[in-house]
Amino acid sequence: MTSTDADCIFCKIVAGEVPADVLGRADHAVAIQDLNPQAPFHALVIPFDHHENAAASAAADPAVLGHLVSLADEVARAAGNDDYRLIANTGAGAGQTVFHTHLHVLAGTSRMTEALV
Amino acid sequence: MTSTDADCIFCKIVAGEVPADVLGRADHAVAIQDLNPQAPFHALVIPFDHHENAAASAAADPAVLGHLVSLADEVARAAGNDDYRLIANTGAGAGQTVFHTHLHVLAGTSRMTEALV
Repeated sequence: MTSTDADCIFCKIVAGEVPADVLGRADHAVAIQDLNPQAPFHALVIPFDHHENAAASAAADPAVLGHLVSLADEVARAAGNDDYRLIANTGAGAGQTVFHTHLHVLAGTSRMTEALV
Repeated sequence: MTSTDADCIFCKIVAGEVPADVLGRADHAVAIQDLNPQAPFHALVIPFDHHENAAASAAADPAVLGHLVSLADEVARAAGNDDYRLIANTGAGAGQTVFHTHLHVLAGTSRMTEALV
């Protein structure tokens, strides 16, 4: 069963109703360029199924998180980045702004070796 | 099949050969306190099975990543943190220092709402 939210921007991107710069696709997810990049490489990996955050996606289907990580790895390496950071924020207090699960994939900045937050 | 690495500190923690401050356990993973916390709450969620990074764990079993996220959510909320950031680093250039898959779980700092890296 697929869940969607009619008001969710990521559901609209998944459905092709809102354009995005697509970096890669898999059976359960799409990877797009972040519109406001915080590193030289900054992708978002978005599952088709709408859930509020990573834990909700994991509760619905644990394998979805693995599929997201696999696609993240694929698009990072395709862009020449063997070293990359994955980030998933849960809650506005952690910087989450779209309440549809997504992984940030960041690469190409030495700041990654200095601190986590 | 379980994979282990005799020289891996996280494999030793999983096996109970090296002590750690355990925050929670699940069937496939253990959550411990980070010894060098970078936020008021900083846990590590470590799968039992030894793989070099998150993508390698996902390739071996996609569901493992979901189990890690579920345990991360459990220990964060048990400590009163509904808002938290999950981070998985791949490669030394992204700040990875132990080459056994792990999720950082960070909470309790407003820096999370300012930047990703």
